[in-house]
Formats: sequence, structure tokens, C-alpha cells
Amino acid sequence: MANIENLKARVLIDCEDAKGLVYKTSKVFFEQNLNIESNREFVDPENGRFFMRSVVSGDFSVAELKNKLISVLPSNANCRVIEPNRKKIVIFVTKESHALGDILIRHSDGELDVDIVAVIANHNTLGELVGRFDIPFIHICAENICREEHESSVIDILKKIDFDYIVLAKYMRILTPTFVSQFDGKIINIHHSFLPAFIGANPYKQAYDRGVKIIGATAHFVTNDLDEGPIIAQDVVGVSHRLDWRDMQRAGRDVEKIVLSRALSLVLNDRVFLNGNKTIVF
Amino acid sequence: MANIENLKARVLIDCEDAKGLVYKTSKVFFEQNLNIESNREFVDPENGRFFMRSVVSGDFSVAELKNKLISVLPSNANCRVIEPNRKKIVIFVTKESHALGDILIRHSDGELDVDIVAVIANHNTLGELVGRFDIPFIHICAENICREEHESSVIDILKKIDFDYIVLAKYMRILTPTFVSQFDGKIINIHHSFLPAFIGANPYKQAYDRGVKIIGATAHFVTNDLDEGPIIAQDVVGVSHRLDWRDMQRAGRDVEKIVLSRALSLVLNDRVFLNGNKTIVF
Amino acid sequence: MANIENLKARVLIDCEDAKGLVYKTSKVFFEQNLNIESNREFVDPENGRFFMRSVVSGDFSVAELKNKLISVLPSNANCRVIEPNRKKIVIFVTKESHALGDILIRHSDGELDVDIVAVIANHNTLGELVGRFDIPFIHICAENICREEHESSVIDILKKIDFDYIVLAKYMRILTPTFVSQFDGKIINIHHSFLPAFIGANPYKQAYDRGVKIIGATAHFVTNDLDEGPIIAQDVVGVSHRLDWRDMQRAGRDVEKIVLSRALSLVLNDRVFLNGNKTIVF
Amino acid sequence: MANIENLKARVLIDCEDAKGLVYKTSKVFFEQNLNIESNREFVDPENGRFFMRSVVSGDFSVAELKNKLISVLPSNANCRVIEPNRKKIVIFVTKESHALGDILIRHSDGELDVDIVAVIANHNTLGELVGRFDIPFIHICAENICREEHESSVIDILKKIDFDYIVLAKYMRILTPTFVSQFDGKIINIHHSFLPAFIGANPYKQAYDRGVKIIGATAHFVTNDLDEGPIIAQDVVGVSHRLDWRDMQRAGRDVEKIVLSRALSLVLNDRVFLNGNKTIVF
Repeated sequence: MANIENLKARVLIDCEDAKGLVYKTSKVFFEQNLNIESNREFVDPENGRFFMRSVVSGDFSVAELKNKLISVLPSNANCRVIEPNRKKIVIFVTKESHALGDILIRHSDGELDVDIVAVIANHNTLGELVGRFDIPFIHICAENICREEHESSVIDILKKIDFDYIVLAKYMRILTPTFVSQFDGKIINIHHSFLPAFIGANPYKQAYDRGVKIIGATAHFVTNDLDEGPIIAQDVVGVSHRLDWRDMQRAGRDVEKIVLSRALSLVLNDRVFLNGNKTIVF
Repeated sequence: MANIENLKARVLIDCEDAKGLVYKTSKVFFEQNLNIESNREFVDPENGRFFMRSVVSGDFSVAELKNKLISVLPSNANCRVIEPNRKKIVIFVTKESHALGDILIRHSDGELDVDIVAVIANHNTLGELVGRFDIPFIHICAENICREEHESSVIDILKKIDFDYIVLAKYMRILTPTFVSQFDGKIINIHHSFLPAFIGANPYKQAYDRGVKIIGATAHFVTNDLDEGPIIAQDVVGVSHRLDWRDMQRAGRDVEKIVLSRALSLVLNDRVFLNGNKTIVF
Repeated sequence: MANIENLKARVLIDCEDAKGLVYKTSKVFFEQNLNIESNREFVDPENGRFFMRSVVSGDFSVAELKNKLISVLPSNANCRVIEPNRKKIVIFVTKESHALGDILIRHSDGELDVDIVAVIANHNTLGELVGRFDIPFIHICAENICREEHESSVIDILKKIDFDYIVLAKYMRILTPTFVSQFDGKIINIHHSFLPAFIGANPYKQAYDRGVKIIGATAHFVTNDLDEGPIIAQDVVGVSHRLDWRDMQRAGRDVEKIVLSRALSLVLNDRVFLNGNKTIVF
Repeated sequence: MANIENLKARVLIDCEDAKGLVYKTSKVFFEQNLNIESNREFVDPENGRFFMRSVVSGDFSVAELKNKLISVLPSNANCRVIEPNRKKIVIFVTKESHALGDILIRHSDGELDVDIVAVIANHNTLGELVGRFDIPFIHICAENICREEHESSVIDILKKIDFDYIVLAKYMRILTPTFVSQFDGKIINIHHSFLPAFIGANPYKQAYDRGVKIIGATAHFVTNDLDEGPIIAQDVVGVSHRLDWRDMQRAGRDVEKIVLSRALSLVLNDRVFLNGNKTIVF
């Protein structure tokens, strides 16, 4: 097994907490003569769980490093050693373009180090925009068919595509438990509200009716508990009585797109760990 | 009726919208030869309601100005002409001092132009702090008596006091509908959460369990719909997975006290109009 | 002169303060039987200047309304009556795409009600992106020629184009006083820093070296005082010691694009008045 | 040297970066059978400097742990092992009470785990407030004497007091280089501006004149470079053209007091490392 010179890798560990984990892993790094470029750990005191993300560099073999780490970690530890790679995403959209557009621009100028393998939409509104960026746009109409039938068509497409994450960039359809369970921890959604507030349809109308002075947006992993998956990122913007709900929606869109892109960047850089229904973000 | 030279007054109007309201009121100001120091209007397009707050100065009689304004406004208009005055508040507390302490300091250095006529508490924890500022502290123990009995004692005290507003500065008891209805639009509360989120007990524990990345606080008027009264002010602060719920509570307290004091200042300056379950804040 | 039914117009007044201005203008509105959809005034107490922005609707003639208003205003008042129109902008860029891209997306989905008549660049890096949106891209190379020569070529282009504003979307060249004076109050810039901080080149490196915990961006009108024109909008984002200056730059770009688009939207909606070296934003 | 059962200590290391530092220190922790309750490291890649803050618990001797750590660290490493202790501060004030008051309230309710050994003031305005909290107030008048003479009196007082930090809670006098050099890294200031902006007198007037849309505050260590010491914390608040400079000052005070108290809390918890003219905040 040949070593690669000046290899750089992300080491991601997630296991039950135990004494000496930092010592044992850093011993492996030291014996492999690695540079630790960054290193962050966190112990969830409530659940006794240990999380670590290190970026290491040197002349080493990924497989060998992983094996050595596994040998010092608890038996059921999750341990990944990943060369920084260009991940692949599929984006789901409906009609609104702001979140999609933000990702397309960041992708086009190289800020988001990602391949967008396809955009799948239940309306064809955004086909023109996606086409401008030479990215495949697949319209799967949901009208006059049941939810399962529509998802079945979507899954047929997904089976033919190699991807790491599904990004719901204002995809206005609820996914079935069957669908979600097939892509556990792989679906990222932008929720048009400051969770846990205003769950459900038209949160900006709800926010307007409630007379709030701040609105927000939440990026989260999708679970089968609607709008209740682990939160990755959130942000807010101030509003006043002068804004009607459409103005609030407009203001909210800026927050939505920034929060989704921020969350996506964190996930693509392997900075997000799942911890039950919460996230650890390094 | 003698005019007062260089009088300054706040004119507060709230009525059904109609054509010419700005014209008719500004005509009154013009004919009285008043300076308009500031002037803000808002029309709620949904409910067809007009709100105006003007600060005027000149040589005039408050009563005469009010009469002239009423004569040009719709018959059921609310019209107040108020000389900027030192309002009176009663503060209700339980055990936590941060919100109370912030008001006491602002009061002591003259930033909050208000008289604190009494602090009423269901525990005696904060008696020492209040005593340091030479403000009456009244402990009405709530143990071993029913809610109605306790409130009855509180109301006995309130009957003997002249006050404009009741400020719930982390008062951890729920007021009965009977109590609230007696002080409609006169009770200001700081809610330890970013409404409409995490209603109920220990919102910081709820926020921690939910893994949010932002926490907030909400100052609102109290209605009989628990935590659902008209919002006056809100603010937020970012948090991370590193904070346990007690850390979140600590971070939240800073937001709570600033938001309550900001709301209180707005109310004391007659900048807040009630508009159904919402507020207009000029 | 035929009246147009259900016309809507923005009335923008800017003049020396005097008694009765609100009365006199609202009298004109009333006599023309107009609906006032929104109305905001501000008096700068320091300079004794009055600003007003009203949105009125009804059956009226723009020219007649303007004449009537002028007849009641001080002789040197600025008074504009504008039908909400689709303004025209020219965008200047260099190599960075984030601010341009954000405008292109908002333009493409109709959020920004504007015509982008051309993008002018001193590098051709962004030609491909602009081409994707079928917008004219004009590359005027600045190499091996003096500043005046380059600007002269730019002005030749501008003379052939009808436009309202020039938007500097990360245009990394300093404009000469001659150029700026030709487009007074018509050039909007996004400054990659929280003005008045870190004036000059590479503010993110400066911010990193200074160890700041917050970075920001400022949209402003361009005057001949470098980075010192009237501020339209600002925003910030928190940073930490973990970010190197390139990370800060990345974080700053999100703020830059949102702030520029927000400022542009305010200007396009005629919500921004110049007041010496400051702005009034309604 | 007897071990103490269930001792908790903060380990603070600051040294040139070298391979194996995490390994070597965590080996010491492991061999001492310590629990690592939290652990944060940072390597400044520009200056090749390593920073670590660990909280450890177990049955151990502070002196022995420190010796063992020193034996594995580079020869000129700074290494401290500190039992969480109640630090002592002296607060310097002039006339404004908001920053002082915020510390007094947090101190009085136990939120700030600190002893305020004295408040030293160059005016007696705040004597009454400080007296309310039974804290020594020392008025050293600065009138009609030169700066050196005044500081000499202050230093006479400080010599008799045991303290860890001097907190300038809106102390409106400039300290001489002689004074500052005696308390290097021990003086914390709240600057009434978002550094690096508006250095010098009356920054709120400067901010008003500049027409900014956001104002802020900066807590920093004091060095002899006026307003240029290492930044600990910053925050901001939005403002508008409606605020005159006194309103801005009022809004700024809320930010000032929160930022100073936040910085103080970080310093008291040994979370702040100095790194040249910057800070590392864990």
C-alpha cells in the first residue's frame, strides 16, 4: 500500500466517550508523523458521546491511518478518514429561485466546491435558469398522481445518479417516510421560518398575523418528524409593522438563501456531526 | 384657559382610516401655529386602521388642541394629547434579578424616565437588592394559598397605588384572566423565548433539547392567551452545541433584560399602539 | 391633459423646513381626492431640512399634482412625482462574481424590478456568467493605458446607453473625480468593510491583522471622497480567531452581496434621499 | 504533597507550535487518570503558535500536573494550571453608570463570579450607586493636578489592594504609558465604538455625522497604542437617520455594557489568550 506524499485528510470520529480518546488518537497521529492542521473535539455530557474532527497532513495511507485509529477506539466507533473531495448533490426545487440561484452562483464561481449532478423539480418554472448554467434539469410533474407515484418517479431518477446529498432548495412538497428513510442524514432542507416557530404552510403569513419583530430561517437535516430534524444553521432579520406578509417573505428569502448555503458549505466540508436530533458543528 | 408657553405634547391618534386624516390633523396643528417636531403615521391596510404619533410644540392648550382634533376625526377615534410625563410602574418579580436589576440601574441614572412605585414579589429573594435602591419591596407569599387568594392580596396593594403599567420582570406565575382583564393593555411581560417558540416552562431546556443555533426573548403585552399577547420587541443571540441549557439560560438573560428595557422605554415614551393582537411601534 | 384612472405615484419632497409643510402637501392630496397609501416625513433638526415620501393613488395627472405641490412649497424645493417605473442600471465589475451574481438572480426572477442594460468590466472573467443571462457584457481592458484613457472609453459606452444608476458590484478600480462628478448621486458602491473602518486595499487582511470579532460591509453613494460617500445600508457578521483572512473574505462576501442588493432595492424604490453626506432612508 | 479528591483545574498552554503537543499533553492527562471535561486547541498558522485550554478533573496535585506538563512542552512554553477561583477586580469609572451598574448587578446576583475590591473614580458622581452595593468607592479627583500626579495617587491605592484585573467601565481618562506598562495584559477597556472606527472623543457624534446605519462597541485589553489593544469582544446595533447623536449614544450604551460584561466573563473564566495584538477566545 503506497503512501501518498503530502496527503491531507479529514478524520471524523464519533463514539461513546471514554478516558484517553484524545490521547490515543493523537498518539496515532504522532506515530504516523502527521501534522495536525486543525483539531476540534466535543463531549456531549448528557449522552456521554465523543466527537472529533481533525485535519491532518503528511505522508500516509488513508486505509492504514483508519485501521490504526479503529484499533484504539471503542468497538462501535464511527471513524472516517476522508480526503477532501468534491461531493455531489442533487437539488430539489419547486418554483422559487432564490435558494437555488444562490447555490448556482456559488457553484459557478467555485466558492462551493461541489458537483451539482441534477436539479429535480415538480414544476418547470426554473428550467430556464438551471439551463443557463448547463446543469441537467429534470421536471417530474406531480399533478394528477399520488405522492407515492411521484416519489417513485423521482427515485427512479436518483437510482441512476451518484450523489452524496439531496438539497431541498424550497421544495414545497412533503416527502413520505418511505422516501426519507432511504436517505437518512442525506437530505438538507431550508425551512422558511425560525424553527421551532410557525410550523406548516405560509409561515410568513403566520409571522405577519402574530406581529413578530424578527423573522428567521432554519437549515436542517430532514427526518420523518416534519420540520423537526437536526438543525444545522439559523439566522434572523428584523422586521416592523410596516411590512406586510409579502414584504416579510421577501426579507425572509435573503435569510433563507444565506442560511441554506452556509449549512451546505458546512456539510460539504464535513463539519457537521449528527447527535440524536441535534448537530455538532465544528 | 391659559396657554402655556413652549409647551410640548405627544399627540396619539388611532381610528378607522379615512381620506384626509393627515390633512385634517395637520391643519389643526397649522392653525394652532404649532411646530411638528416629529410625525409618524401608519395605515394598517388589512384592517383599515389609521395610527398617528406626533410631537408638537408651541404655545397652546392641551385641552383645546384635543378638542379641535376630535372635531375633525371620526366619531369613535382614540385621541390623546399628552405632555411628556413621568409615568409610574409597579414591577412584579420572583427570584431572578437580571431584568429587575437592569431597570433599577436605568432608573437610578435617569435613563428611564419613570417612577418605580413598588416592587411586588412572591419570594423575598430580591428584597435586599430592591432595598439598596430605596424602593418599596412588597413580599406577598404565594405558598399554601390558591392563585385567587394570592392575586386578591396583590390587588389589595395595587388599589392603594397610583400606577400606569405593571412590568413582569421575570415574574414566574401565571396571572388569572380575572387579574389580566382588570389591567388590559397595562401589563408588559418579558418572555424567555423567541415567541412563538417554546411556549411554557423552561424554554432554555427546550431550546437545548431541540439543538437550536439561536435563542431569543420577547417583550409583549399580557393578554389572557398565555404568551400570545401583542409583541413589542424581540431580539436574539447565537448559541452553539458547546452550551448546555444553563449556559443558554445565561446567554438568554442578557437578551431578556435588554429587550424588556427597550420595550419599557418605548411604552413609557408613548411609542407603542395596540392593533388587535399586534403592535405599531413608532 | 387627461387624468389616468387608478394611477399610483411616489411623491418625493426635499426642502428647507418650514411650518405647515405637512398641512400644505396633504391639503393638495386631499383636494385632488387622492388615497395616501403610505407617508413618511423626517425633519433633520440640525440642518433644518424637510424630507417626505408619499405613495398616493387615485385619478389624477402627474404634472398637475406636481404643479400644485410646487405652488405650496418653498421656492427652491425639490419635488418629484414619479410613477413607479422600471429603472435602468449599468453594473461595473472586475473579477469577483458574488455581488453581480446576486443581482442577476434577483433580476432573473423578477424580485429586482430593474433593467440591467449592460455589465461593464475591466477584466473578461465574468463574461461567461453575464452571457448566461443574455445581458450585454462589455469588456474594456484597463491594462497599459492610463486611468483617464480607460474612463474615456467607459464614458463613450455610457453615452450610448440610457440608464439611471451605475452599480459598482465589486469594481476594484478607483474612479476619477472627473468621472464621479458627471454622475453625482447616481453611483452606488459596495465597500468591503464596515465603514468607516479599514479604508483602502484588502480590508479583510486588515481586519484579520487587527483581530476583530465582527466584520461588515457598507453600500454607499460614491463621491470624490474615497469610501466616504453617503451610506445607504450596512450589515455585519461575527468572526473568530479560527478564520484566516481568506475565510473572513468569504464570510464578508455574503454580507457584501446582501447589503448591496438591499441598498439597490431601496434606491430603485425611491426610498433614499441624499442629505449632505448622509442619507434618509424611508 | 497531598492530592485533592475530585479537583477541577483549568490547564492553559501557550507556546511555539511543534509536532505532538496534543499527544504529549493528553498523555500526561491520561497517565494522571484525569477526566478531560473540555479541551480546545488552536494553532495560529501565521505565527506558528499553539494555544490550548483544557478543563480536567480527578484526583491530582496541581503542582505535579504542572511539572509533568512543563517536562513535555517546549522550554519557553507558558503553562498554567489553575483551580477555578474567584478573581479580584478593581473598576475605574468616571460619571456614566451603565457599564458599572451592569457589573454590579451581575456581581450581586452571583452571575459574575468575582470580587469587586474597589471602584476608583475621578468624579464622585457614582459614589452613591457603589455605596448601595457595600463596595468601597474611592474618589481621586483629577482636577488641578497633572496626569502623572493623579495616576500616582491611583497607584498608591492599587499598591494596597490585591487584584487580578483593572476594568475600565467608561473611565474617560487616558492612562499614561507608565501606568499601562505596570499592568500589562491586566487592563480591560470598553471602547464606545466599533473599533477600528471613530477613534477618539465622542464617537457617537462622529457616527452621527458620518450617517452610519450600525453602531457598536469593543472590549479590549489596554496597550499603549490608544484604542488599539487586543480585541476581546464586539457587538453592534442598527440605527437610522431618526436618531440624533444622543439617541445613538443611548443605543450604544446597551451594547457597551453587554460587550464589557461578556468580555469580563470570558477573562474571569480564563478563556482569553493574548496572541500579539490579537486574542484567542475559547
